[in-house]
Amino acid sequence: MIELEKIPHIHEISNHGPYHGAREKNTATFQARSTRQNKLVPSLEEAIRRTGLKDGMTISFHHHFRNGDHIINTVVDKLAEMGYKNLTLAASSLAAVHAPLIRHIQNGVITHIETSGMRGELAEQVSRGLIDCPVVFRSHGGRASAIRSGDLHIDVAFLGAPSCDPYGNANGYSRDDEDGIACGSLGYARTDATYADNVIVITNHLVAYPNAPWAIPEFEVDYVVMTDDIGDPKGIMSGATRYTKDPKELLIAKTAANVIEAAGYLYDGFSMQMGSGGASLATARFLRQKMIDQNIHCRFALGGITGQIAAMHEEGLIDRILDVQSFDLDAAKSLKNNHFHHQISASYYASHTVAAAVDQLDFVILSALEIDTDFNVNVLTGSDGVIRGAIGGHPDTAEGASLSVVVAPLTRGRIPTIVKRVNTVVTPGDVVDVVVTDQGIAVNPRRPDVKEKLEKAGLHVFTIEQLQKRAEKLVGVPDPIRYKDRIVGVVMYRDNTIIDVIRQIDEDA
Amino acid sequence: MIELEKIPHIHEISNHGPYHGAREKNTATFQARSTRQNKLVPSLEEAIRRTGLKDGMTISFHHHFRNGDHIINTVVDKLAEMGYKNLTLAASSLAAVHAPLIRHIQNGVITHIETSGMRGELAEQVSRGLIDCPVVFRSHGGRASAIRSGDLHIDVAFLGAPSCDPYGNANGYSRDDEDGIACGSLGYARTDATYADNVIVITNHLVAYPNAPWAIPEFEVDYVVMTDDIGDPKGIMSGATRYTKDPKELLIAKTAANVIEAAGYLYDGFSMQMGSGGASLATARFLRQKMIDQNIHCRFALGGITGQIAAMHEEGLIDRILDVQSFDLDAAKSLKNNHFHHQISASYYASHTVAAAVDQLDFVILSALEIDTDFNVNVLTGSDGVIRGAIGGHPDTAEGASLSVVVAPLTRGRIPTIVKRVNTVVTPGDVVDVVVTDQGIAVNPRRPDVKEKLEKAGLHVFTIEQLQKRAEKLVGVPDPIRYKDRIVGVVMYRDNTIIDVIRQIDEDA
Repeated sequence: MIELEKIPHIHEISNHGPYHGAREKNTATFQARSTRQNKLVPSLEEAIRRTGLKDGMTISFHHHFRNGDHIINTVVDKLAEMGYKNLTLAASSLAAVHAPLIRHIQNGVITHIETSGMRGELAEQVSRGLIDCPVVFRSHGGRASAIRSGDLHIDVAFLGAPSCDPYGNANGYSRDDEDGIACGSLGYARTDATYADNVIVITNHLVAYPNAPWAIPEFEVDYVVMTDDIGDPKGIMSGATRYTKDPKELLIAKTAANVIEAAGYLYDGFSMQMGSGGASLATARFLRQKMIDQNIHCRFALGGITGQIAAMHEEGLIDRILDVQSFDLDAAKSLKNNHFHHQISASYYASHTVAAAVDQLDFVILSALEIDTDFNVNVLTGSDGVIRGAIGGHPDTAEGASLSVVVAPLTRGRIPTIVKRVNTVVTPGDVVDVVVTDQGIAVNPRRPDVKEKLEKAGLHVFTIEQLQKRAEKLVGVPDPIRYKDRIVGVVMYRDNTIIDVIRQIDEDA
Repeated sequence: MIELEKIPHIHEISNHGPYHGAREKNTATFQARSTRQNKLVPSLEEAIRRTGLKDGMTISFHHHFRNGDHIINTVVDKLAEMGYKNLTLAASSLAAVHAPLIRHIQNGVITHIETSGMRGELAEQVSRGLIDCPVVFRSHGGRASAIRSGDLHIDVAFLGAPSCDPYGNANGYSRDDEDGIACGSLGYARTDATYADNVIVITNHLVAYPNAPWAIPEFEVDYVVMTDDIGDPKGIMSGATRYTKDPKELLIAKTAANVIEAAGYLYDGFSMQMGSGGASLATARFLRQKMIDQNIHCRFALGGITGQIAAMHEEGLIDRILDVQSFDLDAAKSLKNNHFHHQISASYYASHTVAAAVDQLDFVILSALEIDTDFNVNVLTGSDGVIRGAIGGHPDTAEGASLSVVVAPLTRGRIPTIVKRVNTVVTPGDVVDVVVTDQGIAVNPRRPDVKEKLEKAGLHVFTIEQLQKRAEKLVGVPDPIRYKDRIVGVVMYRDNTIIDVIRQIDEDA
């Protein structure tokens, strides 16, 4: 009836033609259709088939289930069974539990890996030359940037979720199953969900629509797969968040808190992030006491969140929590219950390409495996040169924060922490301001302002060379690691330039 | 130092080269840099300049400030002053307050308009041929779909916000200014923020970073402009949400509630949306009593939200609220304070191209200016043919809901509501199930199931022709509207096909 050609400017206005009927009306009740017409797919295999995944494509995963994750192994087993080859596996991180991937690399199912970290047998094997194409290690912010820019294009994201409704609204906890699996924030998964061509949510707990508030909205999800087993609760919420009793770590933590205060970054309305190591977590305890004594509060705490930070929020000491990853069950509970404990995506947290929360940090407390006399930090390879760590948000927060404080014991057993040259540069000395050890503080010469303030406050500041020599005096110089020429890993800085490479261990040497 | 050419597969892995230094460290405290280094731009003019806006481009606005909005007029005045021409203005809707646009259309600053609705002098003038290119009217879901698909590409979005921090985290209320301007949800603005090339947030209330929870995240915002005047609070929160005492409307509301119950869509765990008209709002009151009597609860209420729905949520009768637009201050307060009163975007609400919340509605109660004997509904043009309404989510919810109920008095003064042919088809009869008037119910012949259930429940069902004849008997047949041939408006269905056109009024006839 409508004569489109009579409409002025029609070609500028529309090219969808005249109305040709509505969708067929769905007359079933909402509850009935939730169970019958939805995004639920009867099996993982069927969901994979529907995505159109092909050999050579890229699949992604999050690491919010940490060492309890069962999603990656289950999915890659299934892909192997379906005959896929030559896939790129892009995980936000990998853990010891993912050792079964070794077999799938050997049989050509997985030919490339991107991750923030790697541990256990898989990491050992990669360090020994398991995979032809070097593993790409990116920081959380670098990964988010790479996904946003298209450098890392995800064809199918497989996202485990402790709760999901039949249309894909997914979250890291469940409201109607208090004893169920919880991982808290799904921050890293959110960026995958937004940018991946296809998104499959894999859940053990289907809840009524709408699963609000959600981490991932239904319009980003294509398929929902139910399974009994998404992971092992013990592995999901364990590990890094122990509360230290180690006197060395407590001394480091106390010193770190004093450094922050002396440097002028502890004031009413400051912002902070704590890494997940023992000493950095303990620092929060000493900061808390200073806050109470001085009657000051923290405007926001960022990053991986622990129960300790959640408790300070509930005490009124921290206004807002921006949570990209919940490190323990107390943090997950706080996220669920506290209106101002807010879940953020990897992009929001640390993307290099847009304004990110890390850029608003006063200070960050970070751990290290090694620090060198140029203040470069290694959190990725051990003293034997083998991969055994994760970049995480280390370079993102170090660059973003006004003051980055790296805490570590001067020596670990017979191994020096401060060395002349780190095995692997993960965070460049350009963005590391202060190193705090149990045997002294060093300040990067790039920050004379900080050195002056610390000394004015009565803190003794060593040069990093002094600390290195002290470590050397205590434990000597370890034999150099023997590497082969072959490159097995590439370490990217947060802007996705290459900051270092990891070489194959020479076991015959 | 890193020899990229020695890295196997380097061209597959990266093309950003080796690390070449970090960003310069920002050593100012977070609070200090919030005030000095941020997205704040000293003037609207400067922000416009920085976006690179050019003649012929598309600018967008939201309508959460309704008839109190001062953003559109201020921005377009500024654009005119700066000499811009030939712009497309794409607002989520327009109100009587936007009459000053007439001048900017006359002088060629604005040459095309897209909107959900139009009222007052601007609408009068458009109906009289003010603008050469027909105005495009889209539903909220159709607009979200068009933005997502690129049919409606936004170059610069100008988004008014009652609170924003210096980095662009914006929201529809403020936590630290209880008496400040509030509009509640910024749902329609969220889709613009996500897809526009440039986003300017205009706020009267700058708050400390991070303004969490937020409607719009910082990474979607390019510039923040402060102004004393974003709108008139009285106009922002007024209008549609009056609680009716009109006995005709109360009768219609009571009947509508009975229709829903009889049709089988009132059960434990149902979902609903109420339009903003007097009778549809009153329907909630009658539903509430039924819910209490039968001890049933609503799983979620959707859409434009009123204080009445918020009160039912607080009573425990409604589990979740999905709020794309808050109609009154009580709703805005509930959004701010209630953890399960959740803010959603236009995309989430009603996009046609993805799974949307409207598709999970059991029923929706909708108003109408006219309904015809094919059950087509007009909510856009008056009985004189002049534009004086808005599509809103009318077709989106009518298509999505299992049962769409249109409520209207049979006549308004000397004007019949049920007619042989509506002036303007906005929502096609294909998706309208029941019409409830003060003088009887009609059921679309496409829904014999509903007719049968209503009659079984003792409700008398007329044919729509019977209602039309009754209206005609009461008030006669109005003189036909005289139109010119010229098309001044194009009405899109939610899939952005053209469902009707609006012609110029013939005043000389």
